[in-house]
Amino acid sequence: MQIHKFQEMMRQLYFKRDFERGINGTFNWLVDEVEELGEELKKGTDKEATEKEFADVIAWLASLANVTGIDLERAAINKYNFKCPKCQLSPCECTF
Amino acid sequence: MQIHKFQEMMRQLYFKRDFERGINGTFNWLVDEVEELGEELKKGTDKEATEKEFADVIAWLASLANVTGIDLERAAINKYNFKCPKCQLSPCECTF
Repeated sequence: MQIHKFQEMMRQLYFKRDFERGINGTFNWLVDEVEELGEELKKGTDKEATEKEFADVIAWLASLANVTGIDLERAAINKYNFKCPKCQLSPCECTF
Repeated sequence: MQIHKFQEMMRQLYFKRDFERGINGTFNWLVDEVEELGEELKKGTDKEATEKEFADVIAWLASLANVTGIDLERAAINKYNFKCPKCQLSPCECTF
């Protein structure tokens, strides 16, 4: 599924609620989901549960992009277009 | 671009370094990028800078999925497949 299509699906499912919650509230939800992903990764015992936490993070990132008015796919491709945005190489050869 | 293809692009660009850094280190980078996105959203003045922070978050999420051995697209579709995973409706009609 295209990143853009996933974001549109999230818009269809949740935009009304996301819009009412606003940017700050939706960002806070994203932070909570990232924390839950971190807790699941620390346990490291349940792949299915970890997959669900990954799903939640990209879902809330898409919701946040919707309320912010940003096209997540375009943003991603503009910065990471088959080469490292810093060294301009693939694979990256940055020395930091 | 498909979520899967974006994840594969990130693998091509960064997997060697991501693998060496490991799951915990890569998760910490993701947290830092989410914080940077939050700071940019609080400013709310520079759409191009905000887009770049969104790009960084999805990029590091894909890197983290690579080192964890998870297919981000499959995880996303398995949980959010054109209906809310809680109420099973589209749009979501959860009452919480």
